[in-house]
Amino acid sequence: MFTLSRLYRNAQTLFCCTALFSTLPALAGELTALDRIEPPFWWTGMQDRQLQLMVHGDQIGRTRPQISGTGLRVLKVQAMPNPNYLIIELEIGAAMRAGKRHIRFVDANGQIKAEADYEFKTREPGSARRRGFGPQDAILNLMPDRFANGNPANDVQPGLTDKLDRSDDSAGRHGGDLAGIQQHLAYIADMGYTMIWPTPVVENNQPQYSYHGYAATDFYRIDARLGSNAEYRELVQQARRHGIGVIQDVVLNHIGDQHWWMRDLPSPDWITYQGKFVPTAHARTTVSDPYAASVDKQNFTQGWFSERMPDLNNAHPVLAQYQIQNSIWWIEYAGLSGIRTDTYSYSDPGFLAQWSRRILREYPQFSMVGEEWSTNPNVVARWLRGKVNPDGYVSSMPGMMDFPLQDALIKALTASESWNTGFNSLYEALVNDQFYPDPARLVLFEGNHDLSRLYTVLNEDWDLTRMALVYIATMPRTPQLYYGTEILMTSAKERNDGAARRDFPGGWSGDAVNAFTGAGLTDAQKNAQSWLKTLLNWRKHQPVIHRGKLMHFAPENGVYSYVRTLGQQQVMVFMNKNSSASQIALTRYAEVLPAGAQGRELFSGQHVDLSQSLNIPARGVLVFELSKP
Amino acid sequence: MFTLSRLYRNAQTLFCCTALFSTLPALAGELTALDRIEPPFWWTGMQDRQLQLMVHGDQIGRTRPQISGTGLRVLKVQAMPNPNYLIIELEIGAAMRAGKRHIRFVDANGQIKAEADYEFKTREPGSARRRGFGPQDAILNLMPDRFANGNPANDVQPGLTDKLDRSDDSAGRHGGDLAGIQQHLAYIADMGYTMIWPTPVVENNQPQYSYHGYAATDFYRIDARLGSNAEYRELVQQARRHGIGVIQDVVLNHIGDQHWWMRDLPSPDWITYQGKFVPTAHARTTVSDPYAASVDKQNFTQGWFSERMPDLNNAHPVLAQYQIQNSIWWIEYAGLSGIRTDTYSYSDPGFLAQWSRRILREYPQFSMVGEEWSTNPNVVARWLRGKVNPDGYVSSMPGMMDFPLQDALIKALTASESWNTGFNSLYEALVNDQFYPDPARLVLFEGNHDLSRLYTVLNEDWDLTRMALVYIATMPRTPQLYYGTEILMTSAKERNDGAARRDFPGGWSGDAVNAFTGAGLTDAQKNAQSWLKTLLNWRKHQPVIHRGKLMHFAPENGVYSYVRTLGQQQVMVFMNKNSSASQIALTRYAEVLPAGAQGRELFSGQHVDLSQSLNIPARGVLVFELSKP
Repeated sequence: MFTLSRLYRNAQTLFCCTALFSTLPALAGELTALDRIEPPFWWTGMQDRQLQLMVHGDQIGRTRPQISGTGLRVLKVQAMPNPNYLIIELEIGAAMRAGKRHIRFVDANGQIKAEADYEFKTREPGSARRRGFGPQDAILNLMPDRFANGNPANDVQPGLTDKLDRSDDSAGRHGGDLAGIQQHLAYIADMGYTMIWPTPVVENNQPQYSYHGYAATDFYRIDARLGSNAEYRELVQQARRHGIGVIQDVVLNHIGDQHWWMRDLPSPDWITYQGKFVPTAHARTTVSDPYAASVDKQNFTQGWFSERMPDLNNAHPVLAQYQIQNSIWWIEYAGLSGIRTDTYSYSDPGFLAQWSRRILREYPQFSMVGEEWSTNPNVVARWLRGKVNPDGYVSSMPGMMDFPLQDALIKALTASESWNTGFNSLYEALVNDQFYPDPARLVLFEGNHDLSRLYTVLNEDWDLTRMALVYIATMPRTPQLYYGTEILMTSAKERNDGAARRDFPGGWSGDAVNAFTGAGLTDAQKNAQSWLKTLLNWRKHQPVIHRGKLMHFAPENGVYSYVRTLGQQQVMVFMNKNSSASQIALTRYAEVLPAGAQGRELFSGQHVDLSQSLNIPARGVLVFELSKP
Repeated sequence: MFTLSRLYRNAQTLFCCTALFSTLPALAGELTALDRIEPPFWWTGMQDRQLQLMVHGDQIGRTRPQISGTGLRVLKVQAMPNPNYLIIELEIGAAMRAGKRHIRFVDANGQIKAEADYEFKTREPGSARRRGFGPQDAILNLMPDRFANGNPANDVQPGLTDKLDRSDDSAGRHGGDLAGIQQHLAYIADMGYTMIWPTPVVENNQPQYSYHGYAATDFYRIDARLGSNAEYRELVQQARRHGIGVIQDVVLNHIGDQHWWMRDLPSPDWITYQGKFVPTAHARTTVSDPYAASVDKQNFTQGWFSERMPDLNNAHPVLAQYQIQNSIWWIEYAGLSGIRTDTYSYSDPGFLAQWSRRILREYPQFSMVGEEWSTNPNVVARWLRGKVNPDGYVSSMPGMMDFPLQDALIKALTASESWNTGFNSLYEALVNDQFYPDPARLVLFEGNHDLSRLYTVLNEDWDLTRMALVYIATMPRTPQLYYGTEILMTSAKERNDGAARRDFPGGWSGDAVNAFTGAGLTDAQKNAQSWLKTLLNWRKHQPVIHRGKLMHFAPENGVYSYVRTLGQQQVMVFMNKNSSASQIALTRYAEVLPAGAQGRELFSGQHVDLSQSLNIPARGVLVFELSKP
């Protein structure tokens, strides 16, 4: 009698050379069904030679593994409270060769209860030395379901319950997919982006509101409505040909309540609060607040995001190892350039330190950026590699999302000018850069899927929008934009996810407007698109922007200016928030504008004398490449 | 022929046993007039055995000093560009005895051009070991001109040009004085204050707007309209008998343009920008901003506060030494308990480090608190003793004014409650305490002479006012209040100095209302006065408030609570911002409220069971002394 693994029935189409689960005739009695072995395969030649396998199958916890061949050693076998799980810790010999290894699961009576082939692949050359993203890049955040529907055939999937409803911006799936992204890589590259960060792509088989991807139901499978694992890998390869890296959006903190674990929990403490819904109060300062009550510290990291998103107890060592391996698996399998970590600080701090350290041990030049939604730079800085924290906490995150500076930017642009508002508050915000180990690794964004759109927030003011985008593109930061900003897409003013996540026009066959071709765009949209393309493509080739030193000048009469310097290369930016042109004397800038200084303005191409005075148009932004006599 | 020193003509009445300047018959030629020797006297037995004398007199710079007796050595004589100054550096022998030393100023021809007796006094016993202020204290900030007129006879002074005009709140002198403070020490002590911080008391002989005291014209003389040096010393002594210490308000950054130096500058670089008016842009972040332009850094510390307040170039070593000695002179002469330093960061950072270090070398347990008017805790923390700054700057200030938390408190109380406003923002602000070496040494204030009054800022809401005052009185901070807060004095809502500095009622003979006796106060005022008296007097005897650990609980439904703990002693505070009573379950507080916990409420005196639930009145504040089974 044969029992086939249930969920990996499509393994061969999903994975190139994937592990094959099969069962052999039992010596006696019935064979156990193996639902899963995760990770589904692994590699030889990894830095870390230990590997934890999570095996799921009926009563599999009552067996012990026997592995064929040499070079692979069982270090420890761990039973979970739920006998349907078996946790195997393996040591991979340094000289072990790639290939399949046969595992027999034998019970106390010596009977084989199940068998499986487990594959070790050969790594791609140079995999460990891959470069992550950084200040030389421009990142595009997009929602795959809302960007482009490249393959309408995958819109509806048997077994995936949340169905297509393009009429519903707020909760419905719209059919966008990986194929849609892949078909428009040329557009993305042409705009000047060098990285894409799609919101999560793993399976979210939730009955509703599943399109956003933040409620995983399977950590090892791309959601079939977006594509397959193989298509994801293909997307990464195609993107690379366009000079674009792919950043995976990883959720460590929680899962969807339809995750397969929830139907058969490994242990009562796999989910926080013993699997019962207790909401988090989002009190993020508790993590390092010297005065926080234990009850609040616990609630922050263990409280649930919503009743539909059970909170993972990442302090559980088996789960921690599972999640670390899962991140590494995707980097290695798909060929990622980076990870964006959702709701970063909500996970167990000890786990986070381990997770970030372990990834960098495998890929020392890789990049991760964490989401810590706080406008307090001290709260954000805590998580950065190299940061010395008063309580001794050591993290390894190369970067974090720069919520403090994003907030300061929007406030500065929308406020009127005064001694402590407007440009002055933006100027003052940068004093906090002294507390970041490497400010350029912070990702400064103009928007993302959780925020009202930039153009809306800035009152549909193209002048302010240009200032925001130039600032983001020219600060010592890694810039990140949101899909549709280039065509001035709007949203509600207050947070409204549906409104901020509308379909990119042209992504669906039959769209009246097509932003990829320009058909149907207004002149203002075309102008914005072209302007941003100029900015990002120029930025791409400016080491002075990627690595140059910053000097800025205290705002004066509504004019803010700064200069980036790398060797002989200099770029200087002037912004004028006044509703009339400002004629400014340049004597104050003698440190950077000596007699005879000239500048070529990026957008107009004009050459301007910068040794005496400068006329900055009303609400204008000027970007000069400087040259000196 | 005799020439008497001009400005020290009243020296004997000003100083007990002061230095006497006299001239002796010259051996040949005319004698030089000695206007000043500063400091006017000094002490034996100081930690620092060097002393710099600034001698001012016609052509005195062309002489050299000869000093009688043993134990006092001229280390160096420094001429200034202006020949009317002579700078003498002395070394005081360890065994030198107190008494007067005779100095002859001899010219290049060996002729005696001037002579003076210079006195070294004996220090008060225990002077070096004096204790400064700290979290065990409550500080009262008052403006001497506006608090009480104890001696109308000193209101008008010949030679002091700005005359009495009590009708003008904004700019006029009102006649309040040191005698007025001294006469009401019993009231101040009775209210529960243990420290007073009067705004500056040294001479401000400016033609107008002189009452505030921040434009010194003589650093060694109390403004005669406030009293004499001797009266100041007497005030400190009397205050000590009431259990009150005196904090001197020191301005290091600038002087009044009528300062005697301005008529005969020691050197062109004595005043910044070569004595020419260039306003500061107040860009305080430039001091540590890694990106600030030099021109802005210079402007911040060298720019002038106003055209009438020349900015001192404290980087000048002679001036730096003068100012350090001046601060030490007043501590030693008057018997001070602390210094409040005005516009702290506007001075040269190297000078500030030296100034703070030198004072603490003489008085290791003394306290200084600096004004750094920034709501960024990182900007404030930079100046604190023990703070490790990224750029290596080392400061020695024991405390700074807590502008960040004061701002957070007012914003929290006046905002409506939401996830990031109201109590939540106040709760989150305390995460920054981890970056202060000793948070309890920060001075948390409800108001001062530069701010709109608390009661006005809180919309004349007594409930919010009570929350603010309880918070300030029970946090791990050194609390400071402003005169008149106890009787709900009001001001304009936006900054208006005149309105915020009105006379304390009862301070002037004939006042219709007398807050010292209670005559004419409204019931609300009497109630507030009595309530604050209860709070401060209770606080005075609570080591748990002075030194206890803090634990706070994340605000929930408009209720914020925290507990201070010292050994077995515990105080717990609940604040309810809702307009209805809140019945809260106490299970969440199990960490501090075990079964059987009881509390005695400070203001009502009621004993309350705190093991199950608690009813907090609408907009109520409850302060419990806890007791446990």
